[in-house]
Order: sequence, then structure tokens, then C-alpha cells
Amino acid sequence: MNNTKGIIVVVSGPSGSGKGTIVSELIKNEQYALSISATTRKPRLGEEEGIHYFFKSKEEFMDMIEKRELVEWAEFCDNYYGTPKFYVESKMNEGKDVILEIEVQGALQVKKLYPEAVLIFIVPPSLKELKNRLINRGTESSEIIEKRLRRALEELEFINDYDYLVINDCIEQAVMDINTIIKAEHLKVNKRMSLIEKFKEE
Amino acid sequence: MNNTKGIIVVVSGPSGSGKGTIVSELIKNEQYALSISATTRKPRLGEEEGIHYFFKSKEEFMDMIEKRELVEWAEFCDNYYGTPKFYVESKMNEGKDVILEIEVQGALQVKKLYPEAVLIFIVPPSLKELKNRLINRGTESSEIIEKRLRRALEELEFINDYDYLVINDCIEQAVMDINTIIKAEHLKVNKRMSLIEKFKEE
Repeated sequence: MNNTKGIIVVVSGPSGSGKGTIVSELIKNEQYALSISATTRKPRLGEEEGIHYFFKSKEEFMDMIEKRELVEWAEFCDNYYGTPKFYVESKMNEGKDVILEIEVQGALQVKKLYPEAVLIFIVPPSLKELKNRLINRGTESSEIIEKRLRRALEELEFINDYDYLVINDCIEQAVMDINTIIKAEHLKVNKRMSLIEKFKEE
Repeated sequence: MNNTKGIIVVVSGPSGSGKGTIVSELIKNEQYALSISATTRKPRLGEEEGIHYFFKSKEEFMDMIEKRELVEWAEFCDNYYGTPKFYVESKMNEGKDVILEIEVQGALQVKKLYPEAVLIFIVPPSLKELKNRLINRGTESSEIIEKRLRRALEELEFINDYDYLVINDCIEQAVMDINTIIKAEHLKVNKRMSLIEKFKEE
């Protein structure tokens, strides 16, 4: 697997699905690289350039959009966030599988640009469980929780644009499932064409 | 995974690829069922009805073709061979993944009838290795070996109709790769629609 190019793995899921925890577990594996976003948001305490984000001015960000240097981008709370192409592609060329933790709309942009990208949607075992998790966080008002639940259902409408569905009943199992998916993707015929060519040349 | 319907897994590969050994290793796993072929060939010593084959007269076989009771079929050395639909479907309904070890032409027939079937092509690590394996069997003339090698290259032309390519460098690894593929396939969105429906109903 070491000589082959890495693949793009998009991980999405509703707030409370546990995707953040899953992604931080995944990237402990050296085979994976977490994509770093560009943002116009000001750095928060402890956030470092090129580690947490690539910090950009609004002009720089607009320039990146215009030059098509972003895989996907979105506006959120008056700030822009996007995935720089150069970072994703350099990691893929190093043979690493690049993990993008992004929203449904961003995921669809990625699939358009990279049809071979693998889109994984993470859900909690039930809507009830999702509600419980949001309540247990203790940080959100019941109004926001209702809004999040409605949004989770809205996002589920896009499930058919995704390739895989992983149920996060237990973090370890969900991480294993994603590892399995990525391994299988590397065995796909369209990702092994160079190998087939070598065979034919022989 | 136990409540879900099984999937069809087609395993093909050139003579000498080791697909037979791989399949016999795979089916030690109770999750899998090996498809049993119908044939007009006479039973050989020790071959049992419903275990090695479903033995049919030519009339019965023709009748099965006409009634579309076969997933795929082919003629070989004046005998007919085919995969009975009832057996494959009953095993799938039991939740088992059904393994079909068949030729390229049969594989394409299966994919037409069951677009969600998973097609796996097995190759030896190199053409040279394939040649060595065929020579080491000691049962084939050099003429037949040349014919087999040419045929292997011909079959490789159909690789793009397959979903996955597994290199049989070592049996254990190849078996693990196929297990990984099948597990990942069970995580595909289109195989978990009932689960998504349940979520939405909630």
C-alpha cells in the first residue's frame, strides 16, 4: 500500500454523532493525515498556523476561491472556512489517506472535484440517543437541541450521496469500521490501475 | 450484521491465481455460503447431490434457463453449468454472504442481474509467478501453460467490470483482504437503507 497514492476520506455526521472523537482516534494512525482548513477567523488562544488552521485575510481567502485553490469552502458566522487543495494533494502524494471532517454541502463539493473520494456518514444508534448525547453535554439549550435534531434529519436526506454509513454505538467499533472501509477502498480496481498496467506490460 | 440480507460475492481469476484455495479458506467462516452449481455433467465418484452439485438432465437444465431460474450459466466441454437462483437467494435471505467462484463471462451475467453484487478479481503477484505456479503443478503441458497465460491476459481485459482486485501473494493476506472487502460492503449506504428508514421514522 506504501507505493500507492492516498485517498480522500470525508467524514460527516450530525452534531452529537461523535465524529470529532472518531476522527481524533483515526488520525493516531500514521497512514492518515487530517486535512487542515484555511479560515478567515482570527486565531484563538493556543491555535497555531499550519497546525490548527491556515489563517488568511478575507482578501487572501477570496483570492484562493478565485484561483480554485480550495477543494470546498463555506461561510459560517461571518467567517470563511475551506479546504486548501495543495495540502490535501501533497499528503495524498506522500501516500497518506487524507481525512476531511466537513459538512454535507462541503462533502458534495469534494465528491464533484474528486469523484473517487470516499464519503462516510456517521450516525448515532438512534435519534433518541442523539438527543440524550446533546442533553448530556449540558451546554446547549433545549431550543438549540431541537434545532440540532431537525438539522440531523435534514442532513440525513443527503445520505444517498454518501458511500458508507457507520453507526457510532461504540467508538472503537466505529473506528474499526472506518479502517475497514479505507482498506477495502485501496483494493478497488480503479485504485490499482498502475498495478494492472504493470501486469500487462510484463 | 445478523439481521441484514447477505450479499453476493463473485470471485474470479486466472487458472493458477489460487482462487480455489482462497475460496475454500473463506467458506470456513460461517458468515459465508458457497454457491452450489447445477450441472448436466454426470456425478464423479464421491460427488453428492446438493453438496457438490445439483445434478440435472439436459432437459431439466434447459427448462431452468427458460424459466430464468439461473443467475448465470455456461457450456463447457459439452456440459452445462449454472448457478441456481433459489439457492443463492435463500442463503442471502438467511443473512449469509454467498460466494460464487465463476468465470468472467458468468460474473458479468451476475452483475447484470444483481447490480449490487461484489465482483472480486484475484491475480498472482506477477505473470512470471503465474507461469511458475502452472509449471510447478506438473500436470499441464507447456502448450497448455502458454494457452492459460494468454487466457489470463485476455481475462484481465475485463478487470474494469470488477469492483476489487486482490493480489494473491500469500493466501492468508488474500483471505483477509476479501473479508475486509465484504465487511466494508455491508457498511455501504445502499445496503443499510432499512436502517436509515428506521432512523427517519423514529
